[in-house]
Amino acid sequence: MQNFVFHNPTKILFGKGTIPAIGPETIAFGSKVLLVSGSGSLKRNGIYQQVSDSLLKAGAEIIEHPGVQSNPLLSHAREGIELARKQKCQVVCAVGGGSVIDEAKAICAGAVVNYDVWKFFTGKKSITAPLPLTTVLTLAASGSEMNSGMVITNDETRQKFGFANKKLYPKTSILDPEATFTVPADYTAYGAVDAIAHVLEFYFTTQDPATPVQDRFMEGLVINAMESCNRVLADLNDYQGRADLMWTATLALNGLTAAGLGKVGFPMHLIEHSLSALYDVHHGAGLSAIIPGWMRHQCQSTPQRFTQFAGRVFDCRSGSSEERARKGIDALEEWFRKIDSPISLAALNISREAIPQIAENAMALAKVWRMPDYDGERIQAILAGC
Amino acid sequence: MQNFVFHNPTKILFGKGTIPAIGPETIAFGSKVLLVSGSGSLKRNGIYQQVSDSLLKAGAEIIEHPGVQSNPLLSHAREGIELARKQKCQVVCAVGGGSVIDEAKAICAGAVVNYDVWKFFTGKKSITAPLPLTTVLTLAASGSEMNSGMVITNDETRQKFGFANKKLYPKTSILDPEATFTVPADYTAYGAVDAIAHVLEFYFTTQDPATPVQDRFMEGLVINAMESCNRVLADLNDYQGRADLMWTATLALNGLTAAGLGKVGFPMHLIEHSLSALYDVHHGAGLSAIIPGWMRHQCQSTPQRFTQFAGRVFDCRSGSSEERARKGIDALEEWFRKIDSPISLAALNISREAIPQIAENAMALAKVWRMPDYDGERIQAILAGC
Repeated sequence: MQNFVFHNPTKILFGKGTIPAIGPETIAFGSKVLLVSGSGSLKRNGIYQQVSDSLLKAGAEIIEHPGVQSNPLLSHAREGIELARKQKCQVVCAVGGGSVIDEAKAICAGAVVNYDVWKFFTGKKSITAPLPLTTVLTLAASGSEMNSGMVITNDETRQKFGFANKKLYPKTSILDPEATFTVPADYTAYGAVDAIAHVLEFYFTTQDPATPVQDRFMEGLVINAMESCNRVLADLNDYQGRADLMWTATLALNGLTAAGLGKVGFPMHLIEHSLSALYDVHHGAGLSAIIPGWMRHQCQSTPQRFTQFAGRVFDCRSGSSEERARKGIDALEEWFRKIDSPISLAALNISREAIPQIAENAMALAKVWRMPDYDGERIQAILAGC
Repeated sequence: MQNFVFHNPTKILFGKGTIPAIGPETIAFGSKVLLVSGSGSLKRNGIYQQVSDSLLKAGAEIIEHPGVQSNPLLSHAREGIELARKQKCQVVCAVGGGSVIDEAKAICAGAVVNYDVWKFFTGKKSITAPLPLTTVLTLAASGSEMNSGMVITNDETRQKFGFANKKLYPKTSILDPEATFTVPADYTAYGAVDAIAHVLEFYFTTQDPATPVQDRFMEGLVINAMESCNRVLADLNDYQGRADLMWTATLALNGLTAAGLGKVGFPMHLIEHSLSALYDVHHGAGLSAIIPGWMRHQCQSTPQRFTQFAGRVFDCRSGSSEERARKGIDALEEWFRKIDSPISLAALNISREAIPQIAENAMALAKVWRMPDYDGERIQAILAGC
């Protein structure tokens, strides 16, 4: 195990009927609240109303910033920053999925400085004292509700960049599984794939595979993501399935899986960010298309991790260690197929000709993320197998 | 899954060479530091000196409060409280195992009020604004370094009571596995048993067994505690084993295992507290003597949990579900035997005649902990099977 610092100060309120707590939790940081949200669907299912009622009841003055789209755009975040500055908001409340929370984090960071927020993403500036953030989660996927990361797409340069800073942990996040009942089957599946990808990135890229405590935690999360997703796809209103999937996705990227693993990479996200920056692809669907190909590529370098994964997650016990490793990847791919999640670029209607451009886009992020081992040739080779 | 609040704000610095960070981490809360420690062993192995040097270098004024014993005594905590009050200490730094940290928490809570600290343990007073606490851990066992609980023995009444409050989380805890290299084999084993007991208490007493996310996390922790303990017993200086055991013990009682389980009990600790309040018994050894007997008793009420445990932790796959449940308990007992940890009251030199007195002592705590289902008859029946 490598040395690490673990410090996750986010307070989680989990369960049925917890949304009305958002008012008191938020105004503890100030009464002037920027309320960040996505499309109209929240308004239709009543969640936005619940949040808004709770904030008003607690004495908040609400400044609305709706319209965040998935793969949130820098231009829209900049509008939110302007609004927060102009209205002198003291706290930001995000109601939505990872995209809404990520954009809200960018607003928290950008509203208190006199330069452009994109400088954080390109590593030119450091975050100092962002506005405090509270969240009400409506999608089990990104983990942003209990971590310090954010991903934004620069709509001018078509770069989708991610960035993390310990000052960006939400103060409080409310996770009511019932708030995800209206998420349709495809988005539910993509969310589960996203959570699984978060686990696998670290599991397979650790430089120190002597981490049995973290390994068992991660293997359990992958099994839980699959089992709970299966339950939900059988019945979209299955509370237990929704709850297990929600908590699994949160734990999959809250820092605990990575603690002690040393330097880990985020290669599947690196490549996927370019897919969804260049094409209209859902993040989880993009990951799903890349994961099996990336795993087969990575398995050549660290086969023993894949054998362990296959044994513990898919109970692959027979055959040589290479065969078992392969069977584990096949089993995960087969599960993606079963939940109707894409397993190739073709399934996303992305042609082979696009590969060089995707690779070039990804290389820009590889530079920012300091992943020199992911050069154009390697990225193209991985994409060729997807 | 039941509704829950999870909020663990403790910052963990984990790994080799992390002890010198204690100075800056501590004086962030004030320069006048009450340094709480145990016996002379820390002074002999140099850890106390490292802590003290780091505090002085950071500009702290150190007030020493040494001599905490295992199963820490109320009378000694009261002395620490007097000292902290008189010297106007601003922060407490604990260097030691769970006993030292627990007593330090009692001092933090008691130093700022004008009544006796025992009132917190008997539920007569609530904790408001305790002194901040930092810790340097030297024993993998209690989890106190990342939780809000404390256990103190009242040396007048011979009551060993535990109490938790969210304001008692340490601010920062430093976990250097090398600081545990000098822990002898028997104490290492008892520490592993203590960590396992923390997991099993919740795992087997949850009122809501539909918690697959938590279950897999807990099952992994039990396996990790056993595997890492085996490594350490084979070589007391095995860094990986020490690190895995230390992080496992911390995660075993930091709130994450219980989050979502609803009302859980602490019955094995309830009974053990009476054992070590009345006899000179190490906490982990006392638990070890009780666990197999309690499990056989509990298995009658929730056999399916025991079957799951046996399957996932000990790979028991053949036989009826009752047989598998039994095999799982036998396997854990066998492992206790292998690591030379007691598996009966007799092994602790406690006679059967003592059972009524132990049960009576435990009933007082059952009342405080609101566990009405643990009456004298039931506790005696459990002890009769130990």
